[in-house]
Amino acid sequence: MINATACGVIEAARRARRQIARVYAARHGILGALAEDLIDTSKDRASAIGRLREAPGSAFGSCRFKLRPFEQDRSQYDRLIEVFRAHDIGYFFYNGGNDSMDTALKVSQVSAAAGYPVACVGIPKTIDNDLPLTDSCPGFGSVAKYVATSIYEAGLDVASMYKTSTQVFVLEVMGRNAGWITAACGVAAQAPDDAPQILLFPEIPFDEPRFLARVKEVVERVGWCAIAASEGLRGTDGKLLLEGGLRDAFGHVQLGGVAPLLARRVSEGLKYKCHWAVADYLQRAARHLASRVDVDQAYRLGAAAVTLAIEGRNGVMPTIVRVADRPYRWKIDAAELKDVANREKKLPREYVSVDGFHITDRCRRYIAPLMQGEAFPRFRNGLPDYVQLRNAPVAKKLADFKI
Amino acid sequence: MINATACGVIEAARRARRQIARVYAARHGILGALAEDLIDTSKDRASAIGRLREAPGSAFGSCRFKLRPFEQDRSQYDRLIEVFRAHDIGYFFYNGGNDSMDTALKVSQVSAAAGYPVACVGIPKTIDNDLPLTDSCPGFGSVAKYVATSIYEAGLDVASMYKTSTQVFVLEVMGRNAGWITAACGVAAQAPDDAPQILLFPEIPFDEPRFLARVKEVVERVGWCAIAASEGLRGTDGKLLLEGGLRDAFGHVQLGGVAPLLARRVSEGLKYKCHWAVADYLQRAARHLASRVDVDQAYRLGAAAVTLAIEGRNGVMPTIVRVADRPYRWKIDAAELKDVANREKKLPREYVSVDGFHITDRCRRYIAPLMQGEAFPRFRNGLPDYVQLRNAPVAKKLADFKI
Repeated sequence: MINATACGVIEAARRARRQIARVYAARHGILGALAEDLIDTSKDRASAIGRLREAPGSAFGSCRFKLRPFEQDRSQYDRLIEVFRAHDIGYFFYNGGNDSMDTALKVSQVSAAAGYPVACVGIPKTIDNDLPLTDSCPGFGSVAKYVATSIYEAGLDVASMYKTSTQVFVLEVMGRNAGWITAACGVAAQAPDDAPQILLFPEIPFDEPRFLARVKEVVERVGWCAIAASEGLRGTDGKLLLEGGLRDAFGHVQLGGVAPLLARRVSEGLKYKCHWAVADYLQRAARHLASRVDVDQAYRLGAAAVTLAIEGRNGVMPTIVRVADRPYRWKIDAAELKDVANREKKLPREYVSVDGFHITDRCRRYIAPLMQGEAFPRFRNGLPDYVQLRNAPVAKKLADFKI
Repeated sequence: MINATACGVIEAARRARRQIARVYAARHGILGALAEDLIDTSKDRASAIGRLREAPGSAFGSCRFKLRPFEQDRSQYDRLIEVFRAHDIGYFFYNGGNDSMDTALKVSQVSAAAGYPVACVGIPKTIDNDLPLTDSCPGFGSVAKYVATSIYEAGLDVASMYKTSTQVFVLEVMGRNAGWITAACGVAAQAPDDAPQILLFPEIPFDEPRFLARVKEVVERVGWCAIAASEGLRGTDGKLLLEGGLRDAFGHVQLGGVAPLLARRVSEGLKYKCHWAVADYLQRAARHLASRVDVDQAYRLGAAAVTLAIEGRNGVMPTIVRVADRPYRWKIDAAELKDVANREKKLPREYVSVDGFHITDRCRRYIAPLMQGEAFPRFRNGLPDYVQLRNAPVAKKLADFKI
């Protein structure tokens, strides 16, 4: 949904020409801002910008990059101010999760201190849905719709053939330490024996004997069992189930692989035939099955960020406020970045059933509205027709900067 | 698409009331026929039957079950004739791949020999697309659309963030020994540097050093690389890459797991950050992203099967005949089951590029039309609203039969 938000920002800015002459996008997020690698979005027509609403990925590139701690080394912050000053940039919109909100806050503070005050507005975006003070985060509703649809469909497949083939199916979903996406799978189960019958949350320690007993019980009652498991599943010892596996360049455990591990335990422990799927980026990029509510919220938050900036607000983040569950109504408000940054909103215990294996009605009431409505992209020759922007570079004015 | 075909059969039969009083469905395929576990489809309204066009899985259940070899033991065939006779069944429609076409052929032969001739019509259906004499098999076009869309979308995601995160993405797809689904992923690449840049077919022996060299070359040129790999990938020794892994109850290697294996090799051999996905049943059940051409063909083949049966044809299978590629035109014909059964249509070598890592234009011309058009299901409360039939049982008339 990062593109839908960009669309909201750019379209709102184009309507506010008196305050904002043009919108530059930093290529690959903060990296592009540091490298003075800027894109002039005014070179793209309104029709192309409009189509950002229906494009996955990030049209300008993104990054996973944390600025060095401000207290230890402010050269990166100083460089940002230098770039802003060189290009007469007065507003800084930064889209992302916890880390990004922290960056936006720091930039706001540094720019004020440097005598070149930039209005910094963070805009929430994370499929992990773990930002505080906003009822939901763009990206989550669409991933929720995709994973719930996927396990619903796969469950129908397993239900068709369990007599002579697969009896247990495991779908692994993302979300790191937060069980929001796992919980979303649970919305597909509209009756107790529907798929998925078992959810494994990162917040609930994985107890293998209890798990196997539950699988057995479900297979004996229903004939088959569909399980949604979080990539960030942890054992009763608090360690990630994938602790022993691949590590990335920073030494972090690389997530992905819980599903085959669980399938092996079920297959060896209970002798049921298992299949497993790991959706990985498919869930995050599945713009073909986006939630209309999610797209609308992403767009409106982008537009609201521009309004906040023009009103002179600084160090803030527009938020979604839920007005009612059924029918779902929401509005936009704003929170201070200092109250948002570096805080994580995990799945509350009362959203998980007492036995730890499913969601409660309260959780369902929270998640279901976020996946409402469809927003299919246009298709061409059988495939989604996602826009490619021109991404015209802005001429550099400064010397190179070593990141 | 098995449900769309069932819809075609039932609707055509309802229009031919003078010849066909009612359609019974065998619960869980041939197992239900043996167990006399029949469903009376006439108990479902036309509106519910019509919605089978947009339901995944198999509304009446399916099975993976091969009758015992006819020459060794004909008791199962005799039982089928007994069930047909007890319920005045004159037409037998059997939906599936190679094994199923063989079963349909045998039933036709045995019934004639038993003096209770049943018109047996096989109807093609296999996502593996490996039946001979039909230009394509229902199920394949939709899986093709899903996997091509998925790797296109995931590729956009990787292209957004490769500078600081994942550089190599591997998607594992189904197809067993046939590379049709892997080839379908290739249709997403409309330019040489588009995702997927590398395809790994089961028909092309996997040569690890050549593969790693190609990945390196792509990452150095494009910045990132998306790979689609077949679950049935084999080494230069002819053995499945998954040979050492899980086996099912019959001792067959259980497929699934090639993607993490490849990701590990890339990650260890080239030090690139990798992510991987295994779509497994998600691809087969993804009715939310079906190809309209596929749905239409599945439906029309079902209707054509009824016409063939009423015309007194026996031991035949309706087929898709391609009339033209662009614009795509097709018609229905029929083939003899004896020419279809137990023959496998692999991906022709001329559909694979000389270097073995991609598809040729000829392959693209073959596959692209099959994924044309969308056929979104209806949605309710944010999820697809797939029909649930009543599946009213037919009263049994015979003694139990031990399968």
